[in-house]
Amino acid sequence: MKNSLYIVIVGCGRLGSHLANQLSYVGHSVVVIDRDEATFNGLSPDFSGFRVEGDATQMAVMKEAKLKRADVFFATTHEDNVNLMVAQVARKVFNVPHVLARVFDPRREHVYNDLGIETICPTSVAAEMFLLAVASGRAAMGVAQS
Amino acid sequence: MKNSLYIVIVGCGRLGSHLANQLSYVGHSVVVIDRDEATFNGLSPDFSGFRVEGDATQMAVMKEAKLKRADVFFATTHEDNVNLMVAQVARKVFNVPHVLARVFDPRREHVYNDLGIETICPTSVAAEMFLLAVASGRAAMGVAQS
Repeated sequence: MKNSLYIVIVGCGRLGSHLANQLSYVGHSVVVIDRDEATFNGLSPDFSGFRVEGDATQMAVMKEAKLKRADVFFATTHEDNVNLMVAQVARKVFNVPHVLARVFDPRREHVYNDLGIETICPTSVAAEMFLLAVASGRAAMGVAQS
Repeated sequence: MKNSLYIVIVGCGRLGSHLANQLSYVGHSVVVIDRDEATFNGLSPDFSGFRVEGDATQMAVMKEAKLKRADVFFATTHEDNVNLMVAQVARKVFNVPHVLARVFDPRREHVYNDLGIETICPTSVAAEMFLLAVASGRAAMGVAQS
């Protein structure tokens, strides 16, 4: 039984760096991959993981990140197509047991799910929260519920 | 008591158009404001609300959208500064009772909240969901919980 997980994160933007900082902080082994070295500035000074500068759609970069050892893989870039591709490679080629991808276009979620990749869609989640706020606002404003 | 709300949405991107379609569908009066007319193509053919083409940071545009009548105001553009500005104007100048803004940078959320504007941060929400997935993955993979 392991005490910590080996986690690979593609994309070191706001979401990727936040996850990397949090997961490293609680003791997991984290590797972050990004094409743009400057994004690593978003990592906290306490971040104890590894940085891999490179394009995760290239197999050599995935190997450098030791994907084969990974327990968890997160695709968090801003491009849905990149996330879909790298998540598929992580799942099918490197057999990573737990693969999650961010997807911005809600209409693409089922494509990922059909491929065995869990998705998190910030647009859908935000929309639900806005709609919930309207619903609770209606109640607060004394509007008749239909 | 009103059966429907008057809702103004700034930004007709993925989130804004999704909200506009949903809220119009369930019978609310919806006005969508966007600088770029092309974004209105994201509205469903059934959308029965109004489109205002213009820059919501300009008072004339907000007046055209009849902000004074609004029960709910949503700021959903991709620019945090724009969302903060128009949300403030909606709250303070037009006294809209329920104002919500999307904010991408989690570090800015408290600024909005101090100004009485509710925020929804897709980055924070997505991060929580990813972290939750790791936690449940740990359990599924038989990893010792700390």
